[in-house]
Amino acid sequence: MGVNAPIGVFDSGVGGLTVAREIMRQLPDERMVYFGDTARLPYGTKSKETVIRFSRQIVRFLKTKNVKAIVVACNTATAQALEELRKESDIPVIGVIDAAARVASTVTRNDRIGVVGTTGTIESGMYTRVLKEYNPRVQVYGKACPLLVSLVEEGWLHDPVTEEVISRYLKDLEYKSIDTLILGCTHYPLLRSAFRKVAGEDVTLVNPAYEVAVELKEILDEKKLSCDGEVDQAGKKYEFFVSDAAEKFCDFANSILPYDIERVQQINIEDFD
Amino acid sequence: MGVNAPIGVFDSGVGGLTVAREIMRQLPDERMVYFGDTARLPYGTKSKETVIRFSRQIVRFLKTKNVKAIVVACNTATAQALEELRKESDIPVIGVIDAAARVASTVTRNDRIGVVGTTGTIESGMYTRVLKEYNPRVQVYGKACPLLVSLVEEGWLHDPVTEEVISRYLKDLEYKSIDTLILGCTHYPLLRSAFRKVAGEDVTLVNPAYEVAVELKEILDEKKLSCDGEVDQAGKKYEFFVSDAAEKFCDFANSILPYDIERVQQINIEDFD
Repeated sequence: MGVNAPIGVFDSGVGGLTVAREIMRQLPDERMVYFGDTARLPYGTKSKETVIRFSRQIVRFLKTKNVKAIVVACNTATAQALEELRKESDIPVIGVIDAAARVASTVTRNDRIGVVGTTGTIESGMYTRVLKEYNPRVQVYGKACPLLVSLVEEGWLHDPVTEEVISRYLKDLEYKSIDTLILGCTHYPLLRSAFRKVAGEDVTLVNPAYEVAVELKEILDEKKLSCDGEVDQAGKKYEFFVSDAAEKFCDFANSILPYDIERVQQINIEDFD
Repeated sequence: MGVNAPIGVFDSGVGGLTVAREIMRQLPDERMVYFGDTARLPYGTKSKETVIRFSRQIVRFLKTKNVKAIVVACNTATAQALEELRKESDIPVIGVIDAAARVASTVTRNDRIGVVGTTGTIESGMYTRVLKEYNPRVQVYGKACPLLVSLVEEGWLHDPVTEEVISRYLKDLEYKSIDTLILGCTHYPLLRSAFRKVAGEDVTLVNPAYEVAVELKEILDEKKLSCDGEVDQAGKKYEFFVSDAAEKFCDFANSILPYDIERVQQINIEDFD
């Protein structure tokens, strides 16, 4: 495995494509292998133990593709499984939480930070823990928003119903006078304008998908793992794998990514147990 | 296996508990083993092939409990897998679609029937096929409502947002002048009053959970498999198994069932492959 090996990226489904998109933008020369666990999504409602088991299977699969680094592009999997995956791995494993927490703890002026995400992410308390490592003074207010993923997948991105739901969810956080809000689920960047509208201009929105791409670039540079640009990329630059329903994945991917993907391969991820 | 063997009931998660509840009401002497595939829910977005594989594993598990009949308490699994499961099984396997279709095709006066359900159920066209078998003249209008399961699980059962979402979904059906609406997802009976409010008094709502319990009773009677009431039921009348997060399942079950369940056992369903 050399510097021109691909980066492995995985998520429970399509949400991680917002991370893949940022990596494509910020590291345009890197190759990527993406896996979406569409047969078993969502992870947000599953236990830590199950999320670890699923994530291990995926890491095993990605390693068969000789990846040089792995990005856990799923907040739930980062919250529940990142520590375990890191212990077991000889290549860098990066999650979506760390970089976002670092940025949020820096940009807040009143040390009051809100985090929205799936039930699993919020209940894990992972954002709170990492935010307090960066800045022990911060108060962190988490709010689980289980409806938002379905709203994104329904395509109601700019819709009064979606705004009403977000407004309902943010009500609690409003009373806490937060000045920074982490969009702690990979689907949520697609609701950025609705969040902006409801939260107002005074709240800084932090997008973990953007921040993790920045962190990935730093780590690759530091470990001298950045692509040297000499790779033969004909048709193989980006590869996409899913555990179910490749066609639907393709439709959603093409609505998010800057180019149309030609091929999504379906695999049985349970074979990697 | 005798007449006092339990009935096996399964669903992708908690939705099938509305079916379990009806069986408890209508067949109060029968024992039951319930399995909820909480590690892999929802099934509604998964392919036919995957739903069949998951359902087969569950049937294998239920057979280790010596069930005398199996109720597929999940519309998606019924739509995608019932035929296969029946072919492979030596005991009665009953799905949630058939009985509801029979009733709907009888009660409609203008032969225009609407069906709401998950994307998987609606796209399978299973309701349409079965409805037309009972009454070839019916026009069937399906509408996938992916947001409703999340709204139920969020507990927003009597909520203006839920009514607005239902109203949005029913808009298409309204133009079709349906007089009968099948609530084709096991979560939906919990939204019955919201559906009633939006659809109005002139539309007959058909609840598959209720109808399948009626059908089960008929089949057990016909095959002389009904419980003779001499079973020792101390503590073992109803057993609940899940593939993940037993505690959350318990909370939801206790909000639906007529009694509080004491114990939910977690198993690794992939072991039954």
